[in-house]
Amino acid sequence: MPIDLRPRPPRSALTVHHLGRSQSERIVWLCEELDLDYELVRYDRRADNRMAPPAYKALHPLGAAPVITDGDLVLGESAAIIEYLIETHGNGRLAVRRGEPNFADYLYWFHFANGTLQPLILRVRSLEVVDPSSKNAPLQSAKERFDLVFSLLDQRLRETRYLAGNELTAADIMTVFSLTTMRLFKPYDLSPWPSILAYLQRIGARAAYRRAMQRSDPDRTPVLGAVAAE
Amino acid sequence: MPIDLRPRPPRSALTVHHLGRSQSERIVWLCEELDLDYELVRYDRRADNRMAPPAYKALHPLGAAPVITDGDLVLGESAAIIEYLIETHGNGRLAVRRGEPNFADYLYWFHFANGTLQPLILRVRSLEVVDPSSKNAPLQSAKERFDLVFSLLDQRLRETRYLAGNELTAADIMTVFSLTTMRLFKPYDLSPWPSILAYLQRIGARAAYRRAMQRSDPDRTPVLGAVAAE
Repeated sequence: MPIDLRPRPPRSALTVHHLGRSQSERIVWLCEELDLDYELVRYDRRADNRMAPPAYKALHPLGAAPVITDGDLVLGESAAIIEYLIETHGNGRLAVRRGEPNFADYLYWFHFANGTLQPLILRVRSLEVVDPSSKNAPLQSAKERFDLVFSLLDQRLRETRYLAGNELTAADIMTVFSLTTMRLFKPYDLSPWPSILAYLQRIGARAAYRRAMQRSDPDRTPVLGAVAAE
Repeated sequence: MPIDLRPRPPRSALTVHHLGRSQSERIVWLCEELDLDYELVRYDRRADNRMAPPAYKALHPLGAAPVITDGDLVLGESAAIIEYLIETHGNGRLAVRRGEPNFADYLYWFHFANGTLQPLILRVRSLEVVDPSSKNAPLQSAKERFDLVFSLLDQRLRETRYLAGNELTAADIMTVFSLTTMRLFKPYDLSPWPSILAYLQRIGARAAYRRAMQRSDPDRTPVLGAVAAE
């Protein structure tokens, strides 16, 4: 095989691959809050089925948003990317360290987002698609848990401005997607939880959040009200 | 109100509250791998509906396993507890730090457990309960993703002995429950994935894992084979 003498492209710098209207907006928001130097590549969903396009699926074996590339590294999974960026590019900012009084609160709410909140929303919505009636016992049980989880979140946000305390942390960056953009395809009403709604207003007033949403999905406004509307 | 002069009980040391046959076995296993000084309190599931008993639900607002108490702290959420214990009681052992070559692998597989693997298993099983037929389109789509996710895991375990590399880390401690004990109530067959099965044999040979399972659920054997059986 002849040796390829063409110049190789330089290792790319940090690139956030954003699938439109997806949880990769978390990563864009993190980069804006940390004021990182990053490249954003946007991918529109397919018009026929709203799924990720082949170019996005080709980035990573699981083909799901988010994905970042950083030199030779290809990394998926929101929480992994957020911890990676905070540690390697963010000098530890937006995390809470051992020894700080709200260390355990930070860990709890950071992991609550994908460990409890998001799977529960998905479970309620996918059970409803199959059978929305009251005869669907798993659905009724999931809905009870939904109310319990949202009440806990609302109570927390009555006590503190942000999830880990009075400053924004990565726990908020993990959680907000499930309360906002996710409602475009899994609609639910936040009216019963005024402290969550007030929190979303605080989030929406942050310059970094507004820049991130503008860069991620310039054709829509953030979903910050009680009811999702395009 | 009269002043209560009775002696107050001392602040309890680290206590792991284990609900039988539940994901709190992860925390017992972690404590055994780290050789921590901890108290184990076991709670049997209710005989009538296999749910957590009232005493377990009273530990934490969400009433779900796992829960630990450590002095005045009450903490839930597997990943939060694991990070907390590693940082505050484990001197950082079983985590991989920034600067180590497998730092990103560690983060990915640690978060994959509850971010991708476990919600997917739950989704497939809860959709099957409602309608197991091939007309259930969300079920078919979830099953396709299930095969993709298990193939990725199997491929990883063909390349490395443990998820983050050749040493056991907290990424394994997060993941193994979904591949073992969870199959007692959400059965699925691991036969198509020989590297996952070989991995479970390696896990089952670890003295700390055996001690943890013996202490957690002394009345059953670990679920390490292709098909779950009580």
